[in-house]
Order: sequence, then C-alpha cells, then structure tokens
Amino acid sequence: MFAAESLVRTLINQGVEVCFTNPGTSEMHMVAALDRTEGMRSVLCLFEGVATGAADGYARMADKPACTLLHLGPGAGNGLANLHNARRAYAPVVNIVGDHARDHIKLDAPLTSDAAGVCRPMSRWVGCVADASEVSTMAVEAVQQSYGPERGVASLILPADCAWSDAEPSVIEAQPVPAPNAVDATTVETVAAALRAATDPVLFLGNDACREDGLAAAGRIAAATGARLFMDTFVPRIARGHGRVSAKRLGYFGEQALEELGATDLLVIAGSKPPVAFFAYPDQPGELTPPGARTEILAGPADDVIAGLQALAEALCSGQTEPDLPAQSQAPKLFPDEPLNPGYVGISLLRHMPEDSIICDDATTSGMGVFPWIEHGPRHDWLCLTGGAIGSGMPQAIGAAMACPDKQVFALCGDGAAAYTLQALWTQAREKLDVINIVFANHSYLVLNVELARVGAGDPGPAAQQMLSLDNPKMDWVKLAEGFGVPGQTARTAGEFDSALARALAAGGPQMIVAEI
Amino acid sequence: MFAAESLVRTLINQGVEVCFTNPGTSEMHMVAALDRTEGMRSVLCLFEGVATGAADGYARMADKPACTLLHLGPGAGNGLANLHNARRAYAPVVNIVGDHARDHIKLDAPLTSDAAGVCRPMSRWVGCVADASEVSTMAVEAVQQSYGPERGVASLILPADCAWSDAEPSVIEAQPVPAPNAVDATTVETVAAALRAATDPVLFLGNDACREDGLAAAGRIAAATGARLFMDTFVPRIARGHGRVSAKRLGYFGEQALEELGATDLLVIAGSKPPVAFFAYPDQPGELTPPGARTEILAGPADDVIAGLQALAEALCSGQTEPDLPAQSQAPKLFPDEPLNPGYVGISLLRHMPEDSIICDDATTSGMGVFPWIEHGPRHDWLCLTGGAIGSGMPQAIGAAMACPDKQVFALCGDGAAAYTLQALWTQAREKLDVINIVFANHSYLVLNVELARVGAGDPGPAAQQMLSLDNPKMDWVKLAEGFGVPGQTARTAGEFDSALARALAAGGPQMIVAEI
Repeated sequence: MFAAESLVRTLINQGVEVCFTNPGTSEMHMVAALDRTEGMRSVLCLFEGVATGAADGYARMADKPACTLLHLGPGAGNGLANLHNARRAYAPVVNIVGDHARDHIKLDAPLTSDAAGVCRPMSRWVGCVADASEVSTMAVEAVQQSYGPERGVASLILPADCAWSDAEPSVIEAQPVPAPNAVDATTVETVAAALRAATDPVLFLGNDACREDGLAAAGRIAAATGARLFMDTFVPRIARGHGRVSAKRLGYFGEQALEELGATDLLVIAGSKPPVAFFAYPDQPGELTPPGARTEILAGPADDVIAGLQALAEALCSGQTEPDLPAQSQAPKLFPDEPLNPGYVGISLLRHMPEDSIICDDATTSGMGVFPWIEHGPRHDWLCLTGGAIGSGMPQAIGAAMACPDKQVFALCGDGAAAYTLQALWTQAREKLDVINIVFANHSYLVLNVELARVGAGDPGPAAQQMLSLDNPKMDWVKLAEGFGVPGQTARTAGEFDSALARALAAGGPQMIVAEI
Repeated sequence: MFAAESLVRTLINQGVEVCFTNPGTSEMHMVAALDRTEGMRSVLCLFEGVATGAADGYARMADKPACTLLHLGPGAGNGLANLHNARRAYAPVVNIVGDHARDHIKLDAPLTSDAAGVCRPMSRWVGCVADASEVSTMAVEAVQQSYGPERGVASLILPADCAWSDAEPSVIEAQPVPAPNAVDATTVETVAAALRAATDPVLFLGNDACREDGLAAAGRIAAATGARLFMDTFVPRIARGHGRVSAKRLGYFGEQALEELGATDLLVIAGSKPPVAFFAYPDQPGELTPPGARTEILAGPADDVIAGLQALAEALCSGQTEPDLPAQSQAPKLFPDEPLNPGYVGISLLRHMPEDSIICDDATTSGMGVFPWIEHGPRHDWLCLTGGAIGSGMPQAIGAAMACPDKQVFALCGDGAAAYTLQALWTQAREKLDVINIVFANHSYLVLNVELARVGAGDPGPAAQQMLSLDNPKMDWVKLAEGFGVPGQTARTAGEFDSALARALAAGGPQMIVAEI
C-alpha cells in the first residue's frame, strides 16, 4: 500500500467523500490511490478554479469538507480565487496540493515554486507533509482544521515521494472535529438586556444565522423586541422561501447601508462582524455601524450562532412569541413580450422553481434583481459570492449538485463572471448534474461602470469605456456551453425566458439559458 | 492629476507601452489614468491568467516589460500560473495589483487578502506602495527590478487611495535599467581551456543563448571544438529556421537526456543551469549531468550569455571557423488522406508558414511532434512552456502579436492546456490579432497516461483512466472559438489540415484550427 492510499482511506474515515481534482505527474500516486479505494468519488475539473469552487459549493451544502487535488504551486494559484470565496464563506475545504519529491525541490526544476506560500493567503491552516509516516496524521489535522471552530480552507502540501512511499503509515479511524464555540449565558443575558433597553435595535445576521433555524430564532427575537432583521450583503447560504423568516440584505453601497440602518441605537451581531463597506471610496466611511449605535456581539463566525440565537429567543420571549410569516408568493402576471430583465428571471423562477432548489449567485448586478422576487416563493438556499472573486457560480453549482443530488441547482452568472470559469460546464456535463446555468448577457462589467462614476475618477473616455465593455465581440454563450457539452437556449423576452426555463427543467441535466438583458 | 496618472506617465517614460488588464473597483483610478494618457495601450482580458500570459509573450518578443493591472489578491491569484511561466522564462513583467485603500484593509472587507503574499512566490521582487508620494519612484523600481539583471516578474501592490490621491507626485523621466552581468575574461579563458582539453564536450544552451546571435556563436564554437550543442528542453525563445544554427533540445525524460548526453566529459553551461529532470520518479536520478562529466559555467541566466559565447568563439577560433548550415528544408510530399498527426501539422507549417513567424508552444506531447519538421524551414521564434504551467499558449500569442504586429503568430495547444485559458480567444478577436490557434484534440491528458505508467503506480483502473481522459464529453473547439468570436475549422486528415491552414492564413486575424489526432 502506498502512503497515498493510507491518506485517502484516512480521509474517507473522516467523512471526506468527494475529491475535485486536476492532477499532474506529481499526483499520480494519489490518482492511483483514488482508483483503488472505494468511498471517495473523483471529479475531474478542467481548471483548478473549477475544483476549488466546486469544493466551496459542496461544503456549503454538505456542511463538511470535500478535498481537492491540485498540481504544485501553479495549480494551487489557479485555485486561489475560489478558495478565497470559500474562506469568506467559512466553508470547510481540505485543499491537497501535490508537490515535487522532497529531494527534487532543491534542484529548482521548471515547475518548482513555493506551494505552501501560494496557499497561505487563502488558507486558515497550511500543513506540509515532511515524511511519508505523517500522511495519515496530517490528513486528520487538515480535516480538523477545516472545521475550525472558524471553518475554512486547510491546505495540505504533499510531496510526491511522501505519496509514493510504501512505508505503510497506518490508516486512522474517524476522529472528532471541532464544534463551533458555545455562546455563554452571560453574553446572552447581556444582549437580551441591551435589546430590552433599545428603542430601535437591529439584529445583524451572518453565516449560519441565515440558515433556517437561525432565522426562525431571529424571527422570534424580532417579534418579541421589535428588532429589525438585517443580514450581511453576502452570506454563504441563506434559507429562503415560504414558511421562513426573512432578513433584509444590507445594501451593497455604504450610503445605502447607512440609510437602511438609520437611527438604530443597538446593533446585535449574530454570526457576522460589524458591517463594513465592500470597497473604499474617497471621503466615504468604511465602517457602517451608524454613529451613536452601540454594538453587542452575540456570536462571531467561530461561534454556535444558531444555539446562541435560540437561547436569546428563549430569554426574551419564553417560547410564546412567533413571527407572522407572509403567505407564499403568487407569481404576478407575465407580460411575455416585454424585454427580459433580471426581475422577469425572478418571476419565472417563482413560477417554475422546484421546492428546495439551490441558487448559486455569481451575477453581481443581475442577481440583486432576481433576489427579491422569490423571497416567499418555493423554498431554496441562496449562496452568495462571499469573497467578491467572480467566477464562483458555475463551479459552486457542481459542488452543490454533488452534495445534494436530489435538488435542482441554478447558477446565476454575469457574463463577465461566467467567462472566468466556464470550463465548469464540462464537468457539469460529464457528471450529468441537474444544474441550470443562467448567464445574464449585458455585455459589460456593468458594476464597474457604476463604480467608475462613484470613485470620482471623472467621465470615462473611450479607452476607459473599452476596459469595462464586453460587447466587442459579444460572447455567444450558447456556443460556449455547447462546446463543453451543455445544451443552450437564448431568451430576449420575459416569455422566451419563461419557456426556456420550463424546457430546461423538463430536460434535466445541465442546461444553459442565456438571458439577453 | 491623480497619483495614478503620475504612475502611468512614469511607466510610459520607462518604455512600458502596453497594459494587459482586468480591472475592478479598486483599479478605477488607474483605468481613468490609462484613459487620459497617450502612450500606453490597454488590452482587456476576460481572465487574469490571460493578462499575465500575454505579458509573458510580449516580454519574450519585445525584450521589455508590459504591465498588467489586476484586481486584489484573488485577481493576482488567477494570474499566478502564467507569472510562474514568465518567471521561468526570465521574462520582464511589471505586475501591478490594485489593493484596497490602506485604511480599508484593516476592516477585513470581503475582498481583503494578502495581495503581496499572493504575488511573492512567482515574483523576483514585490513592492507595496505605502504612500501616494511613492508611486513614481516605485514604478521605476518595478521596471528596473523586472530587468534583473536576472529578468523576471516585479509585482507592485497599489492601494486604491495611493492611486486616487491628488498629491501630484512628480513624473519621472526614463531611467537606466540593469544590464545582464558581463562574463569576465577569466571565465572565458577557463572555459576555452576546458573545451580544448575535452574529448566529447557539450555546450548546454539556455535562455538568450538560443537567440540568433547566441546560436551563431555556439555554432562557431562547435565547429572549432567538436562540441555537441544541446539546449534546455524548455527555452523561452528559440531562433530557428534556415540559415540558423540548431542545437538539440534535451530529452524530456531523464533517461533520454542521460542517453543523449552520453559519455561527455565536459558540460559547458551557457545561459542555463546544469540539467535536471522535470519531475522526480522513484529510483530515478534528478540531476542529469552525466557521471564523470566536469561542469563549467560560462554564463547563468543573469549573465550576458550572448557576449560570453561570442568572446568564447573568438578565443577558440579567431573568427575563421564557420559552421556548415544545412540547406532550407523542402516540404516532403503530402499524403492528404492520411490521418492527421503532429508531424503532418509540422509539414504543413513548413509548406505555408511565413518567414519570421512566432510559435507559442503549449502542446506538451504534440508540440514535440511538430518541432523537428520546421527546424530548417522558414525562420521563426519558438516559445516554449518554460514553467510547465499549462494554459500559456493562447494568452502568450496575444502578447507576441502585440509586440510584433507584422509577424504571424501560431499558438500550438493541447486540448487540456487550451481549456485552461480559452478566454484568450476573445482578446485575440477584440484586438484582431494575426494568431492561428491550433488545438491538438487527442481528448486526453496524454502525457499523464505516460507518466502514470512511469511512476510505477500500477495499472490504471477505470477511475484513474477517467481522471486522465477528456473524451466524455468531447470538447467542440470550433464552437468554443466561435463563442469568443474566432472562426474555426476542424481537420482530421493531413490534407484537411493543410487546406485549413492555407485558408486561415489567407483570411488573417485570429483563427482556430482543431487538429483531431
């Protein structure tokens, strides 16, 4: 038995069931080990950013890590952007990066680089296997580190000779993993007292607070105290749809956020951190806690925020108060000949989306237009672009679909974002995943046109406009999808989109709908 | 004037004429500065790996740096793999990475990461602008660092507030840049004496030694001493074709290389380092200097190897000896109905390739099959995959075409490699570049099938085979190219390819030919 096989068997024992991979020569013994071992599914990706994005989506839906298998420093580099998103989603990922054999590194062969250094900025933990005898213990450590208690990316650097060694390190059985930190009773009491005393409190939710149970508890707290419910602009996974409590997503721009939070005198942080602006702008504040508001931290990202919210709800309302939930939304009348816009995409989702769907949102401006329409529609999980690194949607959809094979997945992508990681479509086709990719073709980095105006850099001339425009040439997303084996349709009106969505759902498997907006 | 404008004007004064970019909000003042300034051409790329690969190709052909403009740590991450290739090509690149405003970084907003840390593994120098007053001096430093004397990637981290400041740092005029280190006379004498004394010397060429003047001097040395001429397996730029001296590329696999070098008693290193294996294998040597051979270093990558070779040639042959050069190759008879293979692609290039073409080789196994056919054909520069990070070819072709608008560029890509950075096709179309992309569609990571057998990991089972196969589904490269605005053709026979190549050359602009092999 190669050491690589011990590593794979140990990972399987820790509950790691899927490996998203793009291997190379230095990973061949891992490939052989995956080949020989039952219990871990290997999913080939054409680009490492697809593999890491898939691992992110998997972790958000499965609540446990998948592993990756990447090829040296450059392969890890290709995966960094979606590891960044995973890190910002507090998504557990075991990121395995093969490296040259230990004796080979000092020869400085062409593919040599500092693989650990590449991983470090986007990892909460980086471990370098120094000897074949360590592979199993390091694998357990990587899994445990991915669980946190603040969950995230644990990168394991595996030299080829440590994988190919026949030293037969023992396979390790399932080991306990860290749980989130408990929220202590004093904190709950302090927050409860602050809420009782406040005149316009805001409960600011993030991370797991936006899961169904967290929102339910938050709803009870709101009903008991009058607190307004907000959530981070970008949350890893939001439980939405009929029968669920809603919180308002904080506006993307700082001035929106400050206006929304208004004259609140108390901000209770539950699962997140005090709000900050996404980007800095000249002469604009970065911190968005309104002046005069007191901040109380119920739970941060490493804490058991759901239990904390439930304890807080008990403290405040002793189980009696329940929030009023609006009735399930009925889809408004469709005007089929209207030019398509993100709102009509939202209405069609309201009409056709199966219960318990998953939406991976990588459509910066357009996603915001879809979001409100389905708030009280069919139940779904909405996965946000947590780290702002575009190119997350179609890869994330792979992982979400692998974690939840019975659910329908939608990837909402801006055309600029989709162009980052379109190779994901091939893996969707190969694995026959039920993913409907909706590309919003506005032929522009639309958000940047807004931003260029906002930063006060003056009126854009032709060169600046060209740097933000995607219309020369226009991408043909039906051809791009078909090139990777995914059938495509184009919709230019509300009616065309509605029909295309119905057809895509009936057909099953991966589908592309180009929403020309 | 924004500080960003001072930075751009300073760069232009240092000879930087092109910016390969994918900007975001934190780069908007750089976008505005590029917009307002004459003398720097902005080239939009849909993915950062395209921008960095283009900068690599540009540097190899222009012998000076282009700059990039990337968006924070994740954008830099997406660019790392082709920066790695540039680093391994000793290609000067000024890699500009925008970052959050200095006050914003501490707020840990979603896009925050250690941008300098991301760049460090693939950069020879990383500078962080700490104040707007520094932008011009840091820009000059970055350009100088890119020139070395060992040329490479200089990364400049630019916080948004340092770009948007109106502090008006002065624009700096052209400054001298480091030249390569001179090879001293003693070294030349020592090497000359060693060559005279050796019985089977090998001159091992790399980097600029493989430019036309370096090869000419090497040819004279060989004629005078009987030295055999070898070069690195992967060289940044090889001058080839009729009237030029050839050196043999060292075999990719260690056992090939050792057999080729044979019983040499002297290895003279000129522009490179002593040969090492690309990957490590169990029980195989990594160092490929034959046992018993003495090594003499004439020049390393930081040295003026061309002048060194010329001085060595003078010392050995006093200007009299000239190498015999073979006549220009005539294309062999074409058998049009034969199934296509890389050799037939080479023959068609021999038949149709214009003089002074540029070939960007990202076709691991197939490129090796094309290479020998055109050795004495039309003059051309052959750019190798120096760092082994696949996905270089189509991006590199952008930069080569920008540097040499009068030359015909070919990108040779494996289908696995092409899938890494296919977004490059869009920029080729947008900029109407004369690039013919040839994708070798073997529907496999072919080299990995070879490697899996070589590493001794046993016979591959179905799961391993699936991890190395690209045939389910097969990618349709004509559709993928057309999706990005590049016309495509498919060839399955020698005759079909020959006709397709003639048509593509006649049409001009970017073209895709799918070579089904």
